[in-house]
Amino acid sequence: MCWKDEQITRLITALGSGELADYQMTAWLMAVFFRGMDDGETVALTRAMLHSGDVLDFADIPGKKVDKHSTGGVGDKVSISLAPLVAACGVKVPMVSGRGLGHTGGTLDKLEAIPGFSVTLDEAAFRRIVREVGCCMIGQTARIAPADKRIYALRDVTATVESIPLIVASILSKKLAEGIDGLVLDVKVGRGAFMKTEADARALAEALVRVGTAAGKRVVALLTDMSAPLGRTVGNAIETREAIDVLHGKGPADLVACTRELGADMLVLGDAAATREEAFAKLDRAISSGAAVEVLARMIAAQGGDAAIAAHPDRLARAPVVTPVLAERDGFVEAIDALEIGLAGVSMGAGRTRADQAVDPVVGIELAVARGDEVKRGEPLAHLHVRTNDAGDAIRARVAAAFRIGDARGAGHQLVLAAIR
Amino acid sequence: MCWKDEQITRLITALGSGELADYQMTAWLMAVFFRGMDDGETVALTRAMLHSGDVLDFADIPGKKVDKHSTGGVGDKVSISLAPLVAACGVKVPMVSGRGLGHTGGTLDKLEAIPGFSVTLDEAAFRRIVREVGCCMIGQTARIAPADKRIYALRDVTATVESIPLIVASILSKKLAEGIDGLVLDVKVGRGAFMKTEADARALAEALVRVGTAAGKRVVALLTDMSAPLGRTVGNAIETREAIDVLHGKGPADLVACTRELGADMLVLGDAAATREEAFAKLDRAISSGAAVEVLARMIAAQGGDAAIAAHPDRLARAPVVTPVLAERDGFVEAIDALEIGLAGVSMGAGRTRADQAVDPVVGIELAVARGDEVKRGEPLAHLHVRTNDAGDAIRARVAAAFRIGDARGAGHQLVLAAIR
Repeated sequence: MCWKDEQITRLITALGSGELADYQMTAWLMAVFFRGMDDGETVALTRAMLHSGDVLDFADIPGKKVDKHSTGGVGDKVSISLAPLVAACGVKVPMVSGRGLGHTGGTLDKLEAIPGFSVTLDEAAFRRIVREVGCCMIGQTARIAPADKRIYALRDVTATVESIPLIVASILSKKLAEGIDGLVLDVKVGRGAFMKTEADARALAEALVRVGTAAGKRVVALLTDMSAPLGRTVGNAIETREAIDVLHGKGPADLVACTRELGADMLVLGDAAATREEAFAKLDRAISSGAAVEVLARMIAAQGGDAAIAAHPDRLARAPVVTPVLAERDGFVEAIDALEIGLAGVSMGAGRTRADQAVDPVVGIELAVARGDEVKRGEPLAHLHVRTNDAGDAIRARVAAAFRIGDARGAGHQLVLAAIR
Repeated sequence: MCWKDEQITRLITALGSGELADYQMTAWLMAVFFRGMDDGETVALTRAMLHSGDVLDFADIPGKKVDKHSTGGVGDKVSISLAPLVAACGVKVPMVSGRGLGHTGGTLDKLEAIPGFSVTLDEAAFRRIVREVGCCMIGQTARIAPADKRIYALRDVTATVESIPLIVASILSKKLAEGIDGLVLDVKVGRGAFMKTEADARALAEALVRVGTAAGKRVVALLTDMSAPLGRTVGNAIETREAIDVLHGKGPADLVACTRELGADMLVLGDAAATREEAFAKLDRAISSGAAVEVLARMIAAQGGDAAIAAHPDRLARAPVVTPVLAERDGFVEAIDALEIGLAGVSMGAGRTRADQAVDPVVGIELAVARGDEVKRGEPLAHLHVRTNDAGDAIRARVAAAFRIGDARGAGHQLVLAAIR
């Protein structure tokens, strides 16, 4: 059995026109789940899904357009610092992001913590801002890859989410509809990620690079650690603040490293640097010169937000109560369970379990320690940003339980586990 | 991955209550198609489907109840002679049959060629006739295994029909709902059958026997040849006439043999004979004594039909035109393509391609030769029973093409290819 390109195209066309019923599509999705698809079939599916809606064309805007996609994690606010930083180095970043669901957060929710910031722009505005500012960050519209939305909903209710060719087609169809030249993928690995093992993550990353390349795009994938939350914050306003800190030359080491690593590949794909070394130098200069913050300010202004936040991220709204989670013993922080922290954040209101739920921008968890740190009994492991003291009391034990305090300092943790270029 | 009994039961219950959507069921069916199911899972599915509707209980009727099920073929009218014959030997036969679809005919359509004969009886009438006559032949009601109807419709539109565990559960759930003690399966093999190869047919037959036995029933399966049509007739009234001929000690050798072989196993399963040899003797006596014709007459009368047909099958309605298909060369009949003959019958109006179509009882194809026969150019290969001469002209070449006339007489053809007991 082998599906021809035109069979796959016809399938997706029929799904869009209503000729193919949901019960036939789910049967096909389960067939893919079991038999898999080869790269050619996955390219055909990606193309068919991509062309199920509008495909943007930025050919009239000078320069290369490169985007980044993360498979999702806890505390992953990288896009917010990355897009302006890369744009400041001369690569256009037309970024279409998502919202949080389950234990993973979403860039759109974080951006909306900026007063006035709109993520729902029409194509003309998106195009204008990419041209004039260099980057723009919006949500997926109903007109981009509608087949993906429909298929994802069906996969969700039929246990066919975990199929590499279907994941690849879903990610690439949306990203390729952005009209980009290159794509850097951040494939997260570990407790807080969709892919729990490095082998699974690597298989996905390799498939993404192969299929994306076969579809005519320059694609790179980094496997990055998601066993602990990325950075020190999990929540919307506090993550946005932390991401902006990176553009001010501050921010926690892992978040800075993740931004720089992904940014370097974006500059290389976007022909703004010949090598990753040259790219790192450019990125660092864009931070130290203030150019990246300047791009962020212009993007926020162009999207209707309070541009002063770029220079003064501390002006973002804060929760009325900030209350600590204390260590119950002396020792070293051996592990911080990203999944548990993510789920605790959801239950505090920072995330959602259903797509139609609202999030509270100010609540969240701010880690006071990182893995390897030494702590004493009674010192804070984290601070809970909550609406009331009761809300803090309700979640404190759960957050505490996400920390494993032991006797061994342990080895350092590698952020980038592998790169597929 | 292994499905527990209660998971499967819950699935079928949820399908019945509407909690499980069609698009989830089709995904599950495709999962079964690819991964298969072990016998325990297939038993659980069979039981769940069986209990999705009414389950008959004939415990109050003395004697064993045994039924026969055929996987379907061309010219397969065996049930019509078999049920009265076995009942005449003292085994009760509560038979629920189907209608023709595609190239295979259906017992109900053939029975309805008997004037007045009703195949839609309520449970009380079915029960009464089984008790008083010994056999009764009706159609599946909406109350018997409704989950099977629903699932079959979904398999039909999702290319998941050809899955042995799903076929097994479909067949057994309906048959076990009849409240029988034993079941003899006629698994057809060849061009005119669902299973084209002996290996596939054997795999299905073995699964049916294993799962049926695990479900607590006595089950036997025979693999029988369906490369050529069974008997000499393909059509409704003409097949009924030929089946009744068998009860008069006439009829073509293959049809007589098929009836006797299946009947012998039914008598053994029904404790009416200790051995197949004893069973053959009983069956032959029921024919020679006229007892089988007598039971048929009583069954026809009880089901509202013209009982005189049992003694005088030539009184069945006939087509106004009977026109020959002539051999175009001298030689031996090497093959008669059952599938082509079946499809030709459908196009003449003897069968249907959609469940809602009516059939014409009188049209059909009567073979004038069997495999191995010598024919001379200009001698008839078959006679077409049609409404008009034009109808005969329209189909003649197609029927002729189903015959392969060659120079070799060829070996004899074995009817029973294997038995799984």
